[in-house]
Amino acid sequence: MYRTHTCGELNISKLNETVSLAGWVQRVRNLGGMTFIDLRDRYGITQLAFNEEWDHALIEDARKLGREFVISITGKVIERSSKNANMSTGEIEIQVEKLEVLNVAKTPPFTIEDETDGGEELRMKYRYLDLRRNPVRENLLLRNRVNLEVRNYLSKLGFVDVETPFLIKSTPEGARDFVVPSRMNEGQFYALPQSPQTFKQLLMVGGIDKYFQIVKCFRDEDLRADRQPEFTQIDCEMSFVEREDILSTFEGLTKHLIKEITGNEVGEIPRMSYDEAMKKYGSDKPDIRFAMEFVELNETVKGQDFKVFDDAELVVGINGEGLAKYSRKQIDALINYVKRPQVGATGLVYCKYNEDGTLKSSVDKFYGPEQLEKWATAFGAKPGDLMLILAGPADKTRKALNDLRLHIAEEEGLRDPKVFAPLWVLDFPLLEWDEDTQRWYAMHHPFTAPYPKDLPLLETDPAAVRANAYDLVLNGNEIGGGSIRIHNKELQNKMFKFLGFSDEEAKAQFGFLMDAFEYGAPPHGGIAFGFDRLTAILGGKETIRDFIAFPKNNAGRDLMIDAPAALDQSQLAELSLDIRIAEKN
Amino acid sequence: MYRTHTCGELNISKLNETVSLAGWVQRVRNLGGMTFIDLRDRYGITQLAFNEEWDHALIEDARKLGREFVISITGKVIERSSKNANMSTGEIEIQVEKLEVLNVAKTPPFTIEDETDGGEELRMKYRYLDLRRNPVRENLLLRNRVNLEVRNYLSKLGFVDVETPFLIKSTPEGARDFVVPSRMNEGQFYALPQSPQTFKQLLMVGGIDKYFQIVKCFRDEDLRADRQPEFTQIDCEMSFVEREDILSTFEGLTKHLIKEITGNEVGEIPRMSYDEAMKKYGSDKPDIRFAMEFVELNETVKGQDFKVFDDAELVVGINGEGLAKYSRKQIDALINYVKRPQVGATGLVYCKYNEDGTLKSSVDKFYGPEQLEKWATAFGAKPGDLMLILAGPADKTRKALNDLRLHIAEEEGLRDPKVFAPLWVLDFPLLEWDEDTQRWYAMHHPFTAPYPKDLPLLETDPAAVRANAYDLVLNGNEIGGGSIRIHNKELQNKMFKFLGFSDEEAKAQFGFLMDAFEYGAPPHGGIAFGFDRLTAILGGKETIRDFIAFPKNNAGRDLMIDAPAALDQSQLAELSLDIRIAEKN
Repeated sequence: MYRTHTCGELNISKLNETVSLAGWVQRVRNLGGMTFIDLRDRYGITQLAFNEEWDHALIEDARKLGREFVISITGKVIERSSKNANMSTGEIEIQVEKLEVLNVAKTPPFTIEDETDGGEELRMKYRYLDLRRNPVRENLLLRNRVNLEVRNYLSKLGFVDVETPFLIKSTPEGARDFVVPSRMNEGQFYALPQSPQTFKQLLMVGGIDKYFQIVKCFRDEDLRADRQPEFTQIDCEMSFVEREDILSTFEGLTKHLIKEITGNEVGEIPRMSYDEAMKKYGSDKPDIRFAMEFVELNETVKGQDFKVFDDAELVVGINGEGLAKYSRKQIDALINYVKRPQVGATGLVYCKYNEDGTLKSSVDKFYGPEQLEKWATAFGAKPGDLMLILAGPADKTRKALNDLRLHIAEEEGLRDPKVFAPLWVLDFPLLEWDEDTQRWYAMHHPFTAPYPKDLPLLETDPAAVRANAYDLVLNGNEIGGGSIRIHNKELQNKMFKFLGFSDEEAKAQFGFLMDAFEYGAPPHGGIAFGFDRLTAILGGKETIRDFIAFPKNNAGRDLMIDAPAALDQSQLAELSLDIRIAEKN
Repeated sequence: MYRTHTCGELNISKLNETVSLAGWVQRVRNLGGMTFIDLRDRYGITQLAFNEEWDHALIEDARKLGREFVISITGKVIERSSKNANMSTGEIEIQVEKLEVLNVAKTPPFTIEDETDGGEELRMKYRYLDLRRNPVRENLLLRNRVNLEVRNYLSKLGFVDVETPFLIKSTPEGARDFVVPSRMNEGQFYALPQSPQTFKQLLMVGGIDKYFQIVKCFRDEDLRADRQPEFTQIDCEMSFVEREDILSTFEGLTKHLIKEITGNEVGEIPRMSYDEAMKKYGSDKPDIRFAMEFVELNETVKGQDFKVFDDAELVVGINGEGLAKYSRKQIDALINYVKRPQVGATGLVYCKYNEDGTLKSSVDKFYGPEQLEKWATAFGAKPGDLMLILAGPADKTRKALNDLRLHIAEEEGLRDPKVFAPLWVLDFPLLEWDEDTQRWYAMHHPFTAPYPKDLPLLETDPAAVRANAYDLVLNGNEIGGGSIRIHNKELQNKMFKFLGFSDEEAKAQFGFLMDAFEYGAPPHGGIAFGFDRLTAILGGKETIRDFIAFPKNNAGRDLMIDAPAALDQSQLAELSLDIRIAEKN
């Protein structure tokens, strides 16, 4: 037996007990005739004490230990002379009687401390060392807790975890699939699922009623920052439900998780239509931890010969509470920020509501005090506030103002990771027009049910058809989304046609689902949560990579195992495959 | 709202309440002026009653409903005139007041009943209909319960669920990998994991200490009956443990699962060495629900001029208790059984211990009563028993006798699926010699630790080196297996060399693991359970396919979605791939 206790559990109540511990050497300190070692495992750190007078040979051995050596010791729990109140084990130390080196260690390429000197690449290559650091380990433990909470919560409600297959069929719709050549079925391929969407719908047709799964999904996309080719989804589906049933079920789950994991109580989750979200925040995933709602100013500002405003489709602004104190330099920085190509505004108009009640704008030439008073009224601004205004084409301007709003909130510390503000966004458009391919695409996916009463608009005004869909937004991130599904074969056929599928294509790709709909499909709907993102946000972070044990880099590579890699020619031959890079380049 | 209750929960306590139910029409019966419908959902069946006198239009609608139509009804809970004690809802029925057809259904291609008329292929193609049948649904619900029990049990012990990656690197060792071409890394491939073996070991190096995961694994093997290309494993690993720690931890889990899922209490799980298992049962996964242990007879039977026995390396038999009653025909059937090519014996000698105390063998020419008495003593046979004896090369004969033992047990009903007899098999050989490739292979995998004291034998007698490995056998099926791992770089290197890896190959394939071993790897070991098989056995069955929601057939095809399938040429081009079936054929 290597240990009787972990390095996190001993305290003054165990005084004089003989114990064994095992772990990694965090630090060796020699102080006069004594040596102290911090021994670390997953559960904590315990101080080991060696004294020349107790055992000379033993302290010699202890002094030879290097960082990250793996040792097992036996000794007596004694009271520390200088206690450390910051550690649960800080009142005791172990008077070591026996020391065994279980493994030696080279000096690690970066320090195994909460703050490390290792860069991202190095930490990824030696991820197994990075995992020893408290913050990384804590992230994985948090993920584990969220996982278990989700399971137990949903299980109590009667949801059944059903595993859906990973080797499925490629569908050209949507993002690119990862594919898997089949050796037994020459020249044919499986695809890895982008989500278990069709399978969970088939489970509903199969009467499973309430399904969930925490499951890996795969998308072969060009990776943006903080996207992973494999990611995890909490996937759920219910039968005999309307939208309200789904919203209330998963509102319960969301509140439960926030409570259990972070200790925060959130009240009823507010709801907002997609149109309202775009109008008020310029985003379908607004961060509502803070206000700064958009104020539309067309009525207020036009007709004063200021061409920028007069010519603009939309003049819209936000009121920065208490920001009138911003210096010229700070305001210039905001102007530069909005002019960045990623943000895309041409300029920024501002108006300070000074503490003395006077108003001072960057367009005083065009707007006198009386006009500016009207602005202040429109914004609901008070002395000390700073009004910030953009103008231009509506969509683009809203997007830029959303960026500015989030930027200011970030700078002002309003995006507090310890505050949790979930929001339902509802009534998304069913369809999106794509200029490149000159066709309509499903905004969510082709199985999303339209609002029944919007259905006639499909012929006349497709853009106006709303989907019976919903997103759950948490702190400005979409953490979940779903919809009531089409469960009627005629409507599903109609939708495929509208999306440009020929009968043949629809049959080849989704024939099994349309067949299934002929045998008594119940009304159903569901939702899927991005588990990586949800966990990161509950952990007070926004980078999912830190919450994944073995993540890939932005080129889709695993730097630790050096994958992907070339295959043996014999493996390719077995799969009836040739590589032809030369021809492609 | 489609329903206020499910079809499984209403009973006499709800009398006179107005309720809504939704589900599938199982059956429509017209009896005089009444119509009765069995309405089915996942939770049960509730009888709906319609009466011409209550509502004429409504009963007309009800009579038009076909099997598997999806309906929602509202009505009053009333007492049944003829009660059905076999159903929880058998005392009541619903006096229907409102009926809505939610979806129509074509006549299903097979009956949705416990016993169906649908063949395997048809049921796979319409799996979503098969899932509506009670036995199939019950299997999935059982699987879900086992999953949750495992998680909660291990979580309470401090095991952490960590997700390991699916897109990893191909290793030529062992079974064939499924591979995934990378578009972003041209000409390179990921592989799908056959198990998270190396990753869980890296988690131990990373200090995670106690890991588990219920995870899909993939093997591109030619499929034998009841193998699946994708299967699920309960994968576990622990640090700072010796074999005993692992055995006791997972003995606890096994007993807990058998108790919770089947209600059976099993005592301490017996242990047996591999050598003993082979000697006593001719199998490394003996079914110990019944005795019929092998009795070796070389000493007893040789030297009586019966050439078959005299020339044989091994003469070995089993005693069939109470089987002396077997007729000549039954015994001939056993003789034919052992002569089948799959069993491979050349003949079967038997000896009846008649109820009157006389002994009658098939080789009376060679063995007189006194000799046969010796046989009976060796077997511990009693009047009424039947001794069955095979002779030939040791390994082959043991294998054949194992087949015979299981065959007789099957016929005699000794393999009771409601009885659970787990067994640890220990001390496996570390290595297996392969005649074809003229090299040694790791019997488990190259990371398995040898018994330290057997290590010197690696040079002199590799076949005698025992592995620190263990299998958990349940009712004659290997349901789990694992080992203490090598955690020392030198030993791991030595093992790779012994297995014929060049330094380069070892580095290319497992360099990251050997690197990791240089930075302080703790002693560790683990186990993995076949989740599909475990669930099937706990469910009293041996066919894993019935416990998988969407299984593949023996050609690795999903008959429902018709996968795998050909890819578009454009998809292949993006992946820099060509198919060349012609050249291969």
